[in-house]
Amino acid sequence: MLFSYNHLYQFTFSVFKSIGCSDADAVTATTVLLSADIRGIDSHGVARLTGYVRLWEAKRINATPDIKIVHETPSTAVVDGDAGLGLVVAPFAMQVAIEKAKLVGTGWVSVRNTNHFGIAGSHAMMALEHDMIGMAMTNASALVAPTFSTEKMLGTNPIAVAIPADKQPAFVADFATTTAANGKLEILQRKNADTPLGWVQDKDGQPSTDANILKKQGALLPLGSDREHGSHKGYALGSIVDIFSAVLSGASYGPWAPPFPAYVPMPENMPGKGLGHFFGAMRIDAFRPADEFKQHMDNWIQRFRSATPAEGHEKVLIPGDPEREMESIRMKEGIPLVDSVVEDLREVGNKFSLSF
Amino acid sequence: MLFSYNHLYQFTFSVFKSIGCSDADAVTATTVLLSADIRGIDSHGVARLTGYVRLWEAKRINATPDIKIVHETPSTAVVDGDAGLGLVVAPFAMQVAIEKAKLVGTGWVSVRNTNHFGIAGSHAMMALEHDMIGMAMTNASALVAPTFSTEKMLGTNPIAVAIPADKQPAFVADFATTTAANGKLEILQRKNADTPLGWVQDKDGQPSTDANILKKQGALLPLGSDREHGSHKGYALGSIVDIFSAVLSGASYGPWAPPFPAYVPMPENMPGKGLGHFFGAMRIDAFRPADEFKQHMDNWIQRFRSATPAEGHEKVLIPGDPEREMESIRMKEGIPLVDSVVEDLREVGNKFSLSF
Repeated sequence: MLFSYNHLYQFTFSVFKSIGCSDADAVTATTVLLSADIRGIDSHGVARLTGYVRLWEAKRINATPDIKIVHETPSTAVVDGDAGLGLVVAPFAMQVAIEKAKLVGTGWVSVRNTNHFGIAGSHAMMALEHDMIGMAMTNASALVAPTFSTEKMLGTNPIAVAIPADKQPAFVADFATTTAANGKLEILQRKNADTPLGWVQDKDGQPSTDANILKKQGALLPLGSDREHGSHKGYALGSIVDIFSAVLSGASYGPWAPPFPAYVPMPENMPGKGLGHFFGAMRIDAFRPADEFKQHMDNWIQRFRSATPAEGHEKVLIPGDPEREMESIRMKEGIPLVDSVVEDLREVGNKFSLSF
Repeated sequence: MLFSYNHLYQFTFSVFKSIGCSDADAVTATTVLLSADIRGIDSHGVARLTGYVRLWEAKRINATPDIKIVHETPSTAVVDGDAGLGLVVAPFAMQVAIEKAKLVGTGWVSVRNTNHFGIAGSHAMMALEHDMIGMAMTNASALVAPTFSTEKMLGTNPIAVAIPADKQPAFVADFATTTAANGKLEILQRKNADTPLGWVQDKDGQPSTDANILKKQGALLPLGSDREHGSHKGYALGSIVDIFSAVLSGASYGPWAPPFPAYVPMPENMPGKGLGHFFGAMRIDAFRPADEFKQHMDNWIQRFRSATPAEGHEKVLIPGDPEREMESIRMKEGIPLVDSVVEDLREVGNKFSLSF
């Protein structure tokens, strides 16, 4: 079923208002959440709205948080999200990074006591209009086994980097530090299909193609899949995201990161508060004149786009191309939602006497 | 054949002196170069000494560079390496990042007009003794084909991140953004062995296991190997390294990065000067008290080390463990060099009337 952006926007805004968010926060949370749907990252958009509501019902999300800077230097800050929606805490923290970059060239903000923040790319892209490079990352509940391990120790811990260009669209990389994001498993589960080899392992650490393996003590694999193909590099990347987001800020890290499903009990002996995020903003003209840089980015992008394509492929893509193409289609034609998501949203609507 | 660290140190120092380096620069270059050999990254150590000398003979390396800051803000700088040895330019630039971090919390330095800098980890680790997180990356001559491309557009563009702990050794990740580093191909070439599938592709973009494929218009693959296993993520990572190192600084980027072998002609219409590097230093106590952070890092490291190992594996490793183990062995037992490297070093020695 197809829904217009405006329809989803009105409904989502009303749900956030219903749980007690201020108008401003509901606008921010809705915009961030739907940026996933319009860009084609279906797993991180309105499909998660009911998950956020359940976390609020379980009193794990505070709809009226007192988000504040608890420590800072000219180029850094630690933000405490007061258990707010990550969808609201993250733009606050990214704005702090941007303000610091205006003053001293760069800004770096680590965040504790927060929740899931939607797609990382949405926050990184806030830097673009200021002629800055933006970075965003977050830790998440443990679904990933390090190289040589059967135990799930890390989340899919995404990294986003947004870099402005001049006439070309921006370079926007946004990816989980795993071979495949969890959302891709969910799509295969709905189709009753297998995963390719190299995405997941079973409870003994053996290769598996079972899309339901996470429910059977299996795990997602770090980017690289196995040691021979560099999984220790994906494991290192996921670890760096975990440490920058959670150990630097005082959030809960590694296997102690709080789970997204409200029915999963919180880990015992958590070493910090809530989830953690990390944001960065670098002013281009803190390095070289912004116009000069952006013209070279145009040149970079055009050169890579014109790289000789392999047989069967029309062209070489730039990070951000697929999402931009999706955005232009979905803003025109609407956003498709699968039946189970539509049902979930209707149920949430009923809770608050809102029709979907 | 085994050689002591001291033996290699004296010889390498003398070679750098012979090409005209100052005492201080020769010490720095030697220390950085040999940090690769003692840590087991054989491809980046003395095996490359003759390559550096050839670049100097071709007048592509300036042994007495005037390395300087050409632009700066409180938290950033661009350094021009004056075509110096990257082994010398990089520690200069990393020190600038550290000094800036002392003053405003973090320091970020992009470098142009430089050359290969040895192993990235060596520079990132400079931050550790200051209770800072260190980061280092560099672009390099194009050996890697982006996803869907047959054309080589990126170097193996490594990323290193060093994070201090308290009683535990530091977390030190240092990895090429490809599935396998070029050095691993060289080892297989010497053994006349094939590569695993997923490391390289042939000139048409088809899977290959030929360790000599780079000489036949083939290419290394980005971390992830193919699209289905996330090669677009490795491609994005390599691109970010290229842009931070070279587009931010005004170095030559993408397929225009200057080649390491002196006999390979320089690319035409280079859009910048020399290779590029990027360094970062973040003071821990710009986020939270350093002692508190380092105790949590100990906890992080111990928890990950105690993760349940998969069958056939004794334990889960922390980034930096294999290199540290190698270092303790090689400082005791000596550093093994293959015959061809020994021959190369003798030849270089003859040039300068030095015996190896």
